[in-house]
Amino acid sequence: MIRTIYFDVHAGAVIILNQNRLPAQMEYEKMFSHQDLAQAIKLLKVRGAPLIGVTAAFALALAVINYTGSRDMLKEYYREAEQLLASTRPTAVNLCWAIKRMRIVFDAMQYLDIRSLAEELLHEAENMFDEDVAINNIIGEQGQVLLEPDTEVLTICNAGSLATCGYGTALGVIRSAHKVGKINQVWACETRPVLQGARLTVWELMQDKIPVTLITDSMAAHLMSLGRVGAVIVGADRIAASGDTANKIGTYSLAVLAHYHGLPFYVAAPWSTVDMSLLSGSEIPIEERNQEEVRQVGGNYITVPEVKVFNPAFDVTPAALISGIITEKGIIRAPLGEGLRRQG
Amino acid sequence: MIRTIYFDVHAGAVIILNQNRLPAQMEYEKMFSHQDLAQAIKLLKVRGAPLIGVTAAFALALAVINYTGSRDMLKEYYREAEQLLASTRPTAVNLCWAIKRMRIVFDAMQYLDIRSLAEELLHEAENMFDEDVAINNIIGEQGQVLLEPDTEVLTICNAGSLATCGYGTALGVIRSAHKVGKINQVWACETRPVLQGARLTVWELMQDKIPVTLITDSMAAHLMSLGRVGAVIVGADRIAASGDTANKIGTYSLAVLAHYHGLPFYVAAPWSTVDMSLLSGSEIPIEERNQEEVRQVGGNYITVPEVKVFNPAFDVTPAALISGIITEKGIIRAPLGEGLRRQG
Repeated sequence: MIRTIYFDVHAGAVIILNQNRLPAQMEYEKMFSHQDLAQAIKLLKVRGAPLIGVTAAFALALAVINYTGSRDMLKEYYREAEQLLASTRPTAVNLCWAIKRMRIVFDAMQYLDIRSLAEELLHEAENMFDEDVAINNIIGEQGQVLLEPDTEVLTICNAGSLATCGYGTALGVIRSAHKVGKINQVWACETRPVLQGARLTVWELMQDKIPVTLITDSMAAHLMSLGRVGAVIVGADRIAASGDTANKIGTYSLAVLAHYHGLPFYVAAPWSTVDMSLLSGSEIPIEERNQEEVRQVGGNYITVPEVKVFNPAFDVTPAALISGIITEKGIIRAPLGEGLRRQG
Repeated sequence: MIRTIYFDVHAGAVIILNQNRLPAQMEYEKMFSHQDLAQAIKLLKVRGAPLIGVTAAFALALAVINYTGSRDMLKEYYREAEQLLASTRPTAVNLCWAIKRMRIVFDAMQYLDIRSLAEELLHEAENMFDEDVAINNIIGEQGQVLLEPDTEVLTICNAGSLATCGYGTALGVIRSAHKVGKINQVWACETRPVLQGARLTVWELMQDKIPVTLITDSMAAHLMSLGRVGAVIVGADRIAASGDTANKIGTYSLAVLAHYHGLPFYVAAPWSTVDMSLLSGSEIPIEERNQEEVRQVGGNYITVPEVKVFNPAFDVTPAALISGIITEKGIIRAPLGEGLRRQG
């Protein structure tokens, strides 16, 4: 299993796999401060909703490990670290979820000596890591039941080991289905602009010898019309109480296309992705990223450098287009809002 | 107006604008033989259904200009040149249309001396060039009537001056609509894998000061859901008798998305794109291009170099998803098959 993040006691650093260098280079980087980690999240060195949640948890532990100030100022320092991490990326709710969960430990343990508090926080971050792997395995097992034998599955972005602490959500379902011989083929959408499908999903699946074919995002509809797609499975960055789901830009397009072609469209995500405080998808903040992500590929301009660009990193798929949400608590089916309320 | 192709008497060559170098460089290349021109079509140095038709016409004229063999062998030589050109790209029917039209001149004039025959062929190619510009202007004028004032229009690939002999088909409609103040904004889909939208459409529209914003192909659905698209206008590579239309990969996806969002979806093309010999879109041959077009951008790998790729260059949009076909003969509305029969 590819390790996406861990704490190195000897280095006193959190080690991350820099996903921007994949697949050309598999490069681990030492992060010596929570500020380094916040920057790594912003720059997409670590990405994927579940993984950025756990990364924030490690960052908060590291913040306290590194703390050299007075006892009095610790709480304020910790709050600032939380705010810095929360501000890195607005869409994935797992970030807030992880910060909240770490806060419970911080509040409960804040009267310990600082070193013990730091240890407790690190322990919690590591627990969250282990839990995420376990959750992904459950999602995979439960989700694979939905697929027919000999299925061609289409996915977008990377909801795999690299987006999580291991195994993956959408790719977890595909891995589990592959183990029982159900996967004929995975169609990986390249996922412009940042190409997580071409760079990460292809690489992950090839490492596991799961048959994968790369397509541009614009080819999905054509494949569906040829009868070459049996199901679409994607991850999620935030799921509102209604079941409306924010995920990588292009996901909504696939959902409409699947609906038109009568194909099942599944979302696979840990429960930490569900945000019951938002009634509907229209309340989910959508991150707009740097226009250069669209204008350039690999550092070279693919267009007129001065052209105006629109670069939303996510879109929202309405619940009505989702056949089921696969979480560790089970599979939620339409009407999704009711199902989420019952499980929540 | 940007000149895409012309014959240079002094050089004895057909001059083409190498579209693979745009927008970084505006570079004209001398083509000294019809084989050079066939290669230029294959490599997409010249592209766009109407333009490759006219390019084939210039190539056939050039073949006879260059002919040094015996009178006896001329017919066979000419047939071979036709076959070479017809084999360059299978989807755009304008190529066959142009070859047929040149054949009529060749057959009628073959008893002239070879030099006069060559002159007649060149004259016909130049006529076709001029006619194409005139046709595009009519398409633009007729098509702009379909757009509401203050419209945001979405397009894919490049159906502009660069795809034709000037003015453009889909972009011709947009140009004409812009002249009468109807265009608020053009959304240009980048059009992976070869990025004709990012490279050519953006460049063309910026030169004409028509407001354009670049998006990835995966963002179109999201824009539609935001109410930011008033109409979709695309070109065509071949239209079957039913109205089913082959165009750049990704077009079918946009048609389904427009249908789902209740938006008009228009095809703009000269009548030479209509192939009444094919009953439906399923008979249109779809070109599959080199897998490296998907694996690489600007010569650099964006994925694992060994990954399997599917790279169809076109897809077919069924007539039922098309609100109207704009040709120089007028606007054809549903049922398209009937309308095409009436005009044809």
